[in-house]
Amino acid sequence: MTLLALNLAGTFAFGLSGALAAIRARLDIFGVFVLAAVVGLAGGIIRDVLIGIRPIALRDWYYLAAVGAAAAVVLLAHPELERVRRPIDVMDAAGLSLFCVTGAIAGLEAGFGAPEAVILGVLTGIGGGILRDVLLGKVPVVFRRGLYAVPALVGAAIVVVAYRAGARDLGFAVAGAATCFALRLAGLRFNLDLPTPAPVSKRLRGLRPRPEPR
Amino acid sequence: MTLLALNLAGTFAFGLSGALAAIRARLDIFGVFVLAAVVGLAGGIIRDVLIGIRPIALRDWYYLAAVGAAAAVVLLAHPELERVRRPIDVMDAAGLSLFCVTGAIAGLEAGFGAPEAVILGVLTGIGGGILRDVLLGKVPVVFRRGLYAVPALVGAAIVVVAYRAGARDLGFAVAGAATCFALRLAGLRFNLDLPTPAPVSKRLRGLRPRPEPR
Amino acid sequence: MTLLALNLAGTFAFGLSGALAAIRARLDIFGVFVLAAVVGLAGGIIRDVLIGIRPIALRDWYYLAAVGAAAAVVLLAHPELERVRRPIDVMDAAGLSLFCVTGAIAGLEAGFGAPEAVILGVLTGIGGGILRDVLLGKVPVVFRRGLYAVPALVGAAIVVVAYRAGARDLGFAVAGAATCFALRLAGLRFNLDLPTPAPVSKRLRGLRPRPEPR
Repeated sequence: MTLLALNLAGTFAFGLSGALAAIRARLDIFGVFVLAAVVGLAGGIIRDVLIGIRPIALRDWYYLAAVGAAAAVVLLAHPELERVRRPIDVMDAAGLSLFCVTGAIAGLEAGFGAPEAVILGVLTGIGGGILRDVLLGKVPVVFRRGLYAVPALVGAAIVVVAYRAGARDLGFAVAGAATCFALRLAGLRFNLDLPTPAPVSKRLRGLRPRPEPR
Repeated sequence: MTLLALNLAGTFAFGLSGALAAIRARLDIFGVFVLAAVVGLAGGIIRDVLIGIRPIALRDWYYLAAVGAAAAVVLLAHPELERVRRPIDVMDAAGLSLFCVTGAIAGLEAGFGAPEAVILGVLTGIGGGILRDVLLGKVPVVFRRGLYAVPALVGAAIVVVAYRAGARDLGFAVAGAATCFALRLAGLRFNLDLPTPAPVSKRLRGLRPRPEPR
Repeated sequence: MTLLALNLAGTFAFGLSGALAAIRARLDIFGVFVLAAVVGLAGGIIRDVLIGIRPIALRDWYYLAAVGAAAAVVLLAHPELERVRRPIDVMDAAGLSLFCVTGAIAGLEAGFGAPEAVILGVLTGIGGGILRDVLLGKVPVVFRRGLYAVPALVGAAIVVVAYRAGARDLGFAVAGAATCFALRLAGLRFNLDLPTPAPVSKRLRGLRPRPEPR
C-alpha cells in the first residue's frame, strides 16, 4: 500500500518532467501526454518486457492515471511549473530512488542474478528519461553529465546485496532508496559530473573536454 | 479473410510511406527495405511484445511479403510515387484506421482493460511512424503537428467501448475504422493541428508558437 | 564451448566499438559502459524478446563481463585503440559473422520460418549498432553506406537454407560465418556501398547522390 503510493508519486513526478520537456520542445498536446507516459512508464515497461511479464503499467490503471494527471497538471500550470525547477528535481530524485529499488526487487523476484537485478533496477530508473531524449532527438543527458545513473546504481546495489545475503525486509529497500536520493540531491546541489574521457583527436590539438552549456 | 486482406493493404500502404521516407533521407537500398518494414510492421510488433505473444509479423509471411513488395515498388517507381502524395496519404489513412481497430481488438482479446486496449490500438497505428522518424533522426511528426493520433484514438475507443458493452460484431470495428479514416482525411484536407502549448521562456520574449515549415 | 568462446569474442569486439564511439561522442564514463553494452548485447536482447525467451545476455553473466571488460579496456587504452582501426574492424566483422549465424540458428530452433530466421540473424548482428547510432543522435550508418547488412544476410541465409534442407551440422554455420566475414572484409577493403536511390527533387535539379564524408 505504502509502496504503491510511493510508486505512483514517483510515476507522477517523472510524468511532470516528461510533460515539461515536451512543452519546451514545442510538442502538441498529444505529444505532451505521450512524453509524460514515456518518462513515467517506459523504464518499468522495458524492465517487465525483459523479465517476460505483462507490463505492470498496462495491468494496473493507476499508473496510466498518474501520468495522465501529470500531463494535465503541466498543461494547465506549466508557466508556474517551469519556474519551480527545484521542487520538480526533488520529486524526480524521489522517483529515481523508488524505481531503482522496486526495479531491482522485481528482477530478484523473477530469478535474475545479482548484477542483472542491479541493471534492471537502474534501467527502471533511467529508461524513461533515455527514451524521452531519443524521442526529442537528443543524446540522452544521463550519458553525458550530471550524477543520475550512479545514485540509481548504488541504491539498487544496496538492495540486491542485502537480498542476496538473506536480508529481505523493507529496511534495506528504504536504505537503498534513501542513499540514491541523497546522492542524487548532492549531485544536483554541487553540480557533480562523472569524468568524460577526451578523444585523442581533440587531445592532439591541445583541446580539453569542454562542458556543454547547461 | 477480408480482415487479412485489409490488414495487408494497410501494411503495404505503410510500407510505401516508409520506403519513400527512406529515399528522401538518402538511405541505401537496404535502408529502403528496412524503413518499409519498420513503418509497416513495427507498430504491430511492439503491440505483440507488450501483449506477450509472438509477433504476428514474424509468424505469417504475408506481412513480410507486403512490406517487401512495397519497398520494391518504391525502388522501381519512386519518381512517379513522389508526385502522387494524395493517393498515398489516403492509403496511409486506411492503414491507420485498420491498425488502430485491429490493435485494440488484439488488446481486448488478450485481456487488457479498456484504456490499455485503446492505447495498444493507437500504438499499433502510430508506432511504426514514430520509429521511422527516430531512425531518421527527427522528432516524431505525430507529436508535433497534423491530426494523426487523435483519429486513431477515436477509432480505437469506438471499438473498445462497444466491445466492453457486449457488442462484438464486426459492425463496430467498421464504424471505428471509418470514423478514424474520416477524421484523418478531414485533418489532411483542412491542415488541422492540435494546439501546441507555448513554453514560458518564449512567451516572455513575446514570441508566439511558430508552425514549422511543412 | 568453442561457440561460447567465439560468441564472447564477438561481444567483446562489439563492446570495444561501442565504447570507442561513446568516447568520440564525448559521453561520460557511465555512457561508455552503456554504449559498450548496447553494441555488444542489444542485438541479441532484441532477438530474444522477439522470440519470447529471457535474454541470454541477462541469464549468463559472461556476456555482461565481456562488455564490461571491453569498456574498461577502452577507458584505459583508448588513445592507442583509436589509432588501430583496422584490427578493431576485423574483430567487429568477426562479431557480425558470429551473431548473424547464431541469431539465425536461435530463430530456427524457436520454430520461426526461414525468412523470419534470416531476419532474426541479421537483426542480431546489426541491432546493437543501430541502437548505438540512435542513442548518439545519428541516422544508423548501416542504412546509409558500407557493406554491413548484406554480408550478415548472406551468412544467415546460408545457415537457414542448409538447416531447412536438413543439414544441421556445424559445417554450414562455419560456412555462413566465413562467407559473412569475407564479404564484410571485402566491403571494407574496397569501400563498397550499396546503391542509394536519388530522390526526385534532387534529380530534377541535376544533382547526383553525393557520398557523405567518411
